[in-house]
Amino acid sequence: MANTRILPPTPRAYQSKLLIKEIFNQSLKYEPDREIVYRDLLRLSYKEMNKRVPRLAHLLTTHLQIEQGQTVAFLDYDSHRYLEAYFAVPMVGAVLHMINFRLSPEEILYTINHAEDTVIFCHEDFLPILESLQGRMETVQRVVLLSDSGATPDTPLELSGEYEELLLQQPDTYNFPDFSEDTVATTFYTTGTTGLPKGVYFSHRQLVLHTFGLATSLGAMDNALKIGSNDVYMPITPMFHVHAWGFPYLATFLGMQQVYPGRYEPAMLLKLVLQEKVTVSHCVPTILQMLVNHPQVKTFDLTNWKVVIGGSALPRGLAMAAMDLGIEVITGYGMSETCPVLSLTYLNRKTMRHLTEEEEADLRVKTGRPIQMVDIRLMNEEGQFLPNDGKSTGEIVVRAPWLTQGYYKDEERSLELWKHGYLHTGDIATIAPDGVITITDRKKDVIKSGGEWISSLLLESLISQHPDVQETAVVAVPDQRWQERPLALVVARPGANLTDEELIRHMEQFSDSGRISHYAVPKQFKFVSEIPKTSVGKIDKKRIKKELEV
Amino acid sequence: MANTRILPPTPRAYQSKLLIKEIFNQSLKYEPDREIVYRDLLRLSYKEMNKRVPRLAHLLTTHLQIEQGQTVAFLDYDSHRYLEAYFAVPMVGAVLHMINFRLSPEEILYTINHAEDTVIFCHEDFLPILESLQGRMETVQRVVLLSDSGATPDTPLELSGEYEELLLQQPDTYNFPDFSEDTVATTFYTTGTTGLPKGVYFSHRQLVLHTFGLATSLGAMDNALKIGSNDVYMPITPMFHVHAWGFPYLATFLGMQQVYPGRYEPAMLLKLVLQEKVTVSHCVPTILQMLVNHPQVKTFDLTNWKVVIGGSALPRGLAMAAMDLGIEVITGYGMSETCPVLSLTYLNRKTMRHLTEEEEADLRVKTGRPIQMVDIRLMNEEGQFLPNDGKSTGEIVVRAPWLTQGYYKDEERSLELWKHGYLHTGDIATIAPDGVITITDRKKDVIKSGGEWISSLLLESLISQHPDVQETAVVAVPDQRWQERPLALVVARPGANLTDEELIRHMEQFSDSGRISHYAVPKQFKFVSEIPKTSVGKIDKKRIKKELEV
Repeated sequence: MANTRILPPTPRAYQSKLLIKEIFNQSLKYEPDREIVYRDLLRLSYKEMNKRVPRLAHLLTTHLQIEQGQTVAFLDYDSHRYLEAYFAVPMVGAVLHMINFRLSPEEILYTINHAEDTVIFCHEDFLPILESLQGRMETVQRVVLLSDSGATPDTPLELSGEYEELLLQQPDTYNFPDFSEDTVATTFYTTGTTGLPKGVYFSHRQLVLHTFGLATSLGAMDNALKIGSNDVYMPITPMFHVHAWGFPYLATFLGMQQVYPGRYEPAMLLKLVLQEKVTVSHCVPTILQMLVNHPQVKTFDLTNWKVVIGGSALPRGLAMAAMDLGIEVITGYGMSETCPVLSLTYLNRKTMRHLTEEEEADLRVKTGRPIQMVDIRLMNEEGQFLPNDGKSTGEIVVRAPWLTQGYYKDEERSLELWKHGYLHTGDIATIAPDGVITITDRKKDVIKSGGEWISSLLLESLISQHPDVQETAVVAVPDQRWQERPLALVVARPGANLTDEELIRHMEQFSDSGRISHYAVPKQFKFVSEIPKTSVGKIDKKRIKKELEV
Repeated sequence: MANTRILPPTPRAYQSKLLIKEIFNQSLKYEPDREIVYRDLLRLSYKEMNKRVPRLAHLLTTHLQIEQGQTVAFLDYDSHRYLEAYFAVPMVGAVLHMINFRLSPEEILYTINHAEDTVIFCHEDFLPILESLQGRMETVQRVVLLSDSGATPDTPLELSGEYEELLLQQPDTYNFPDFSEDTVATTFYTTGTTGLPKGVYFSHRQLVLHTFGLATSLGAMDNALKIGSNDVYMPITPMFHVHAWGFPYLATFLGMQQVYPGRYEPAMLLKLVLQEKVTVSHCVPTILQMLVNHPQVKTFDLTNWKVVIGGSALPRGLAMAAMDLGIEVITGYGMSETCPVLSLTYLNRKTMRHLTEEEEADLRVKTGRPIQMVDIRLMNEEGQFLPNDGKSTGEIVVRAPWLTQGYYKDEERSLELWKHGYLHTGDIATIAPDGVITITDRKKDVIKSGGEWISSLLLESLISQHPDVQETAVVAVPDQRWQERPLALVVARPGANLTDEELIRHMEQFSDSGRISHYAVPKQFKFVSEIPKTSVGKIDKKRIKKELEV
């Protein structure tokens, strides 16, 4: 490749680099009076935020003496403060560590020490967590209080002051430096099924390109959403979780009005959607289920609300329930390692008007097609590509400009992640000739029965179509004869009288119609009052198996 | 900056780079059966183009033995062939030289030799140009015929075959290589007011980022266009001119239907808009004027047509005429050196419904606001920034990720272009506090009268509001007392009886109302039948001054 004509280096220095400050700089260009809303507590205009982010930069570099390359942690609900940290921390050259407050205190301690956090900005509600870790945080020098109540907390921790008070003492302009666009901007930890949490990290360049990818695929592609600058955004995926899927960066890039809901209380979420005329959100299916099931939901007009569902598969029944409420719902696919967005439902509005509601729901619940710049393939265990024929089943592997380079300080698992030169998602899928991906299972959750693979996700989807089933989770249990067999945990609807026999009869209609094979019909059911969930609301099959002692 | 934490290099090699092949790879993802239409001569699906581009790559590298870093020239009207070259030439690591066929043969010769073209793909209509240059093209080894007629041309040139015939002989898959995203992809020449044509050049990275910038600003921003994948695109700015403003890359990135009109014949253009249901185009005001003035224009339904106007200012009268026909018209701003798009009209549909038609036209004719990633400032002659106060007048200088690094093999003019670390556009403007740019003049066209600057563009705009004026151009002429004074060339409407006195009276109403100062009212008029234009349809003030001998 030595022969290609490369741009001369001068004056490359003057070309804008792909730095997060370029996203931030858009926010005043279009609608500087638009607001960032924090629950019913605070309203700020972009103009004001453009003073607050420089103030936070001064707080970090002058008051707290954070240096470039050091890590600053946030432990907060979804707030305007978090948004300010999304910008100020990387823009001074430091790394933002978004702490998952749903982890156990011991796991949180591990991530704080592993990421080498220097300062932690901590919401008053989470002070007890840090108190319990006192003396064991190896690199933390200061804790800054994030307060909603304004009360002075009763804590043995030595606090370096309160965010709002400290902010007001700082100058409101800051000369944000230029540096390599490959500088790490953010980090957070993903909890795998085995072993310790893994730290993923993203550079300025990757976050800018991911933002462009979202803007193009959600704005200019003719999926049903057509998100634009006049939308009003509210996350319902926590901001610690893959930067709320990158949407706060997108919203700022386009100058949208933004709403941050704090803790996720269904009544408050619905109230904010109505009051602030929220038009676009994203969440896991569990949260949407919670909102759709809310007793007063029918009194709210949700017909202008677009919701991207991710984290786990959108059940068809839930999609239809949301569609009935007028919610424009589509599926996104990605993971912590991928920034996260890789694919989105693609709906061509020119052709979809011919679809029945059921056909439309089928499209909406699939994993969609890869967005711009994303190359998704199926790979078998030997590292060979499989065809997109809608039948071949393999692991989804991916290339894109915004994938984590690996796991922080974990060479072994990084190499495993990037085996054969593609990032391995651990998801088992088929890809149709038109590019539509259908995830059939997590690699670790697939049920290997009698030499065949049974998809636990497909069984869950079919079981949940029974009118008396509220929720279900299928796991593999060891079987002497078949190696593994499916076992279904089932939460029955209140008042229903559901039996094993009834569910077997229900599932046999699908084997009779050829949808699944006869050996895939589960014979073991366990009725429970609740399905165990992980900290981000996904079904926790690791815990289920542990509790079943399988 | 040594302290920032930089991404570890492994496995950076696996992250997708910003290469043009990534744009091309999108084209099959969504609507592979959509068509690329060439006049009434040819229709190709994306699926077919995905075989033709690899064929062209083989033709280039195997048959024509083009090596990476070499330059391949195209001399064609707007065609599917040109689109194929937009991809295949850079994707094999070569540089695409887009020859401006409106230049004089001697200028074309200069650009061919300066760019060091190895092969020229030449439309049959342009063979006479190359014939006239025979023996003087220093680096050209082969000429490939681009034929619409299918006829064997009667030419003394030694041709290496015809495009379609050669293409069919090549294999239809090609393993496009990876290389640095800073590899030069395209080059073309801009004709300044003085001196020889200047070669500008753009890298793969720059073209990908420009495409993302267009997708975001035209798709996700709430300007009136909301361009998306379901749009149907047809250029009416030649493909040799700054890659048709980058729109063919955008259209392919989003998988739009595309229509290439060949030569610009008004009847054919209007026919294609109707027949192919074209929804988005771009052109200079002169072309739009020609279409709006077409005798049969009222018989065409143009209400689904969105047009971006650039190249020179959109006259208000023309904007209103277009709006009356239902055309959604906005202004874009940029230049050959800037890839080109820098700013676009920004219309907030939430607020613009309160505007009168006149107010709306005023917004549409302005230069707009900088798009994502573009930093536009005003600078005075000493290299100091001026405030965005709507009053301070200075030169527009710019940073963005997609600006030419300089002029090819011209260090002196490159340094001049990038003086003070910003690219100098040569345009004089004001910027309002809300970011809206109003270009008042080209730096070289500003009229320096009695120590004050008079905008020739403003005078043109005001003169053209006289109902009997069809077109006008204002230039500076030397004046003993005032240094310079404005002189207006005027094309009167057919049948009108226009006099100097009438025009002075017309202009004095604007000085009476304070719109312009009294000394800005022109006293010298010259009635002409035509205004001289440059090869890209702009008013040629250099030639006007030369013909006036001023």
